[in-house]
Amino acid sequence: MPLPLAITMGDPAGIGPEIIARLFCDAPLDMRGCLVAGDEAILRRAAGIVAAGSVSLPLARIASPADAWQVPPRCIPLLQALPTQALAPFGRISAEAGRAAADCVVWAAQAALRREVAALVTAPLHKEALAAAGVSYPGHTELLQAQAAAFYGQTADQMPVRMMLANDELRVVLVSVHLALRQAIEAVTVEGLLQTLHIADRALTPLLGRRPRIAVAGLNPHAGEGGLFGTEEQQLIQPALATGRAQGLDVHGPYAPDTVFMRARARPGRLAEFDVVIAMYHDQGLIPVKYLGIEQGVNVTLGLPLVRTSPDHGTAFDLAGTGRADSASLLAAVRMARRLVAREISEAAPLT
Amino acid sequence: MPLPLAITMGDPAGIGPEIIARLFCDAPLDMRGCLVAGDEAILRRAAGIVAAGSVSLPLARIASPADAWQVPPRCIPLLQALPTQALAPFGRISAEAGRAAADCVVWAAQAALRREVAALVTAPLHKEALAAAGVSYPGHTELLQAQAAAFYGQTADQMPVRMMLANDELRVVLVSVHLALRQAIEAVTVEGLLQTLHIADRALTPLLGRRPRIAVAGLNPHAGEGGLFGTEEQQLIQPALATGRAQGLDVHGPYAPDTVFMRARARPGRLAEFDVVIAMYHDQGLIPVKYLGIEQGVNVTLGLPLVRTSPDHGTAFDLAGTGRADSASLLAAVRMARRLVAREISEAAPLT
Repeated sequence: MPLPLAITMGDPAGIGPEIIARLFCDAPLDMRGCLVAGDEAILRRAAGIVAAGSVSLPLARIASPADAWQVPPRCIPLLQALPTQALAPFGRISAEAGRAAADCVVWAAQAALRREVAALVTAPLHKEALAAAGVSYPGHTELLQAQAAAFYGQTADQMPVRMMLANDELRVVLVSVHLALRQAIEAVTVEGLLQTLHIADRALTPLLGRRPRIAVAGLNPHAGEGGLFGTEEQQLIQPALATGRAQGLDVHGPYAPDTVFMRARARPGRLAEFDVVIAMYHDQGLIPVKYLGIEQGVNVTLGLPLVRTSPDHGTAFDLAGTGRADSASLLAAVRMARRLVAREISEAAPLT
Repeated sequence: MPLPLAITMGDPAGIGPEIIARLFCDAPLDMRGCLVAGDEAILRRAAGIVAAGSVSLPLARIASPADAWQVPPRCIPLLQALPTQALAPFGRISAEAGRAAADCVVWAAQAALRREVAALVTAPLHKEALAAAGVSYPGHTELLQAQAAAFYGQTADQMPVRMMLANDELRVVLVSVHLALRQAIEAVTVEGLLQTLHIADRALTPLLGRRPRIAVAGLNPHAGEGGLFGTEEQQLIQPALATGRAQGLDVHGPYAPDTVFMRARARPGRLAEFDVVIAMYHDQGLIPVKYLGIEQGVNVTLGLPLVRTSPDHGTAFDLAGTGRADSASLLAAVRMARRLVAREISEAAPLT
């Protein structure tokens, strides 16, 4: 049997546990060979919300990842990845819930690094809860980076990661993620850009079967309009692109941020001009990805020696416990993880 | 007869003149009562490109705006709004072309302020050409603001303007426009936000027949995530919204920038949650407006004592002279101007 996929439960006060349970109930074929890294009581509560009297959604506690394949369809393979939890109330930020979510991610990262699971699919955590728990990383990406770097005896700087957002129309890779906009501007450096280009090139080449056509967005309106509205394009972005081109990358730009995403959009009857857009900061890239509706968006962490995907939505505290949360993005994340796992077998190694 | 609409020819090295000529040829009913503020030789060249031997597209030189109504359909009413021009080569930035474009805008602004034309529809100019001509304003908006302020004996600060972008799905009003991103962050102030809210409320109330439901985007990722990724939301945006609410505005937010535009998007079968989104900087607002395709986008200048719309694309130097440029956005701008003119008759007055 191939290695199973680990799905982390996310913040127990959010919709993570119930959208996971929903998929085991509604998409049993997609979920074969998936295990949940979480807490038994929390997942039982989620299963109860989804089943809601009409159908039964049992849970099977497993001791090791490989046991996931023994669990029948429409039954949740639960690996208790943390100390037994009290039931967190829905919709509330708490240090306990933040800690529980982080523990599951750490367990799954270690399991992936030890090659006990093929990939991680992470349900949403809440960043304020994470901070309340004293976790010193703002989100999944940085937490996974630290785990992987430590596993390979490297510093986080030696294991640069980038976030990719993908849906049916568009792929975007972000130069920086969870930074205030002021700090995100400072994070645009020649070295960081070049790293981003190489990470994107390396991740997408096996997926496409050829080198990706990479478009790079400017930082400023109209990509600086020849220096009139900012100089980062001339001083930082163009030099990084020139170097990347000299190194064999198929890179283009910098382009006006307000039209480059449209040009990279694949639609029925219209081929995309580019395979991926490099966005200079979080919202520049996420606004176009999410504009069409978040149901199908998937978040992929690039650059790590493990595969990690996640839905591109948050904990949705206002919906937690209602059973009405949409599990489509999580399902898309599971499917994307399976596609990436095929390549990862030959690619698994830290980026040096 | 109602007052005519003035269409400014834009940079003669770009697609402006030929998309104007295209509309007089292809959409003659929409163009009744429109005049072109431009140069005769330049518009004759554009008419020749559009007609291209197959049809005839004559030009009638008029002496005063009201004469536009005397010109028959499929004939271009040209008002020579500047000294006679040499034919600018296509696709090249030049001070002469920048000056010519600016002269037409100044003429049309004065005509609108004197109530000789009902509104301005401006074809694209090139900002570098404008700068080369020594024009001290980065774009149309600032140029019009200066004209209007001078006309009313005010300073530009006393006549705050904002840019609105609108298509069939979404309306966005921008806090700032043509600033480097670093400067755009500094331009987010309580006073500027409150001004933006009032300008949007005042402009959209007559158009909708009720007060608009205004959503406000955050500046930082996740609208700062409770202060973890930036403090502008807590220190500037929330106070401005609280004041606006106390003054009777229907304002909501600040919301995460990556999902607020999606929530404000009107689609078949799905009502928008908001009538307009206030974007903190140029690309935050323009990326979603343009993502679906720029053909239908219209740019509206709010806050001025005159109506001004424009297509939301640039001079497209690479297409200029080919006759292949799409005139759909310019047509949408003409139609939007007519809708706004109806209300402007009762609203025309500087915002104080």
